[in-house]
Amino acid sequence: MHKQEPIYLKAITLRELSDVYSLKKDIKNKIILIVRITPLAQKDVEGLRKAVEELYSFTKDFDGDMVRLGDERIIVTPPNVKIWKSNNRLE
Amino acid sequence: MHKQEPIYLKAITLRELSDVYSLKKDIKNKIILIVRITPLAQKDVEGLRKAVEELYSFTKDFDGDMVRLGDERIIVTPPNVKIWKSNNRLE
Repeated sequence: MHKQEPIYLKAITLRELSDVYSLKKDIKNKIILIVRITPLAQKDVEGLRKAVEELYSFTKDFDGDMVRLGDERIIVTPPNVKIWKSNNRLE
Repeated sequence: MHKQEPIYLKAITLRELSDVYSLKKDIKNKIILIVRITPLAQKDVEGLRKAVEELYSFTKDFDGDMVRLGDERIIVTPPNVKIWKSNNRLE
């Protein structure tokens, strides 16, 4: 067995559609993201929809995964981290 | 570079103090856990306190990490997953 490199997990808040840019950098760097979406949801539902769509297709391009976690958050994982799930939304 | 084994991430709910047993098995198996604690918090605050203490010391024995995530959840990570944080509670 070889020693694995550490994987990082970051909890962040999505406040502006433009925050998507730094999230994409984190996804590229294979960081596990737990993203609180409520601040953007409360002020710009259309912006949130766009942000989530962009993140979803970007994540899929990197063979990552993305699911909803309750009402407030989404989880984004890199290819080497598998989300254990029965559907696309975790309670 | 060797191909890394996948790491699993599981979102689960803590309803009874006795659920701690299966969480410990997951921690041993190096699964990343996102644990919703509100159902137990609402019916048994003392039970929650015990559960969190037990999980915390168990996690530390395995060189893992544990932080609070908002009001409803805790995150537990195995030794190879590092939580990016400024304090012991993430927003």
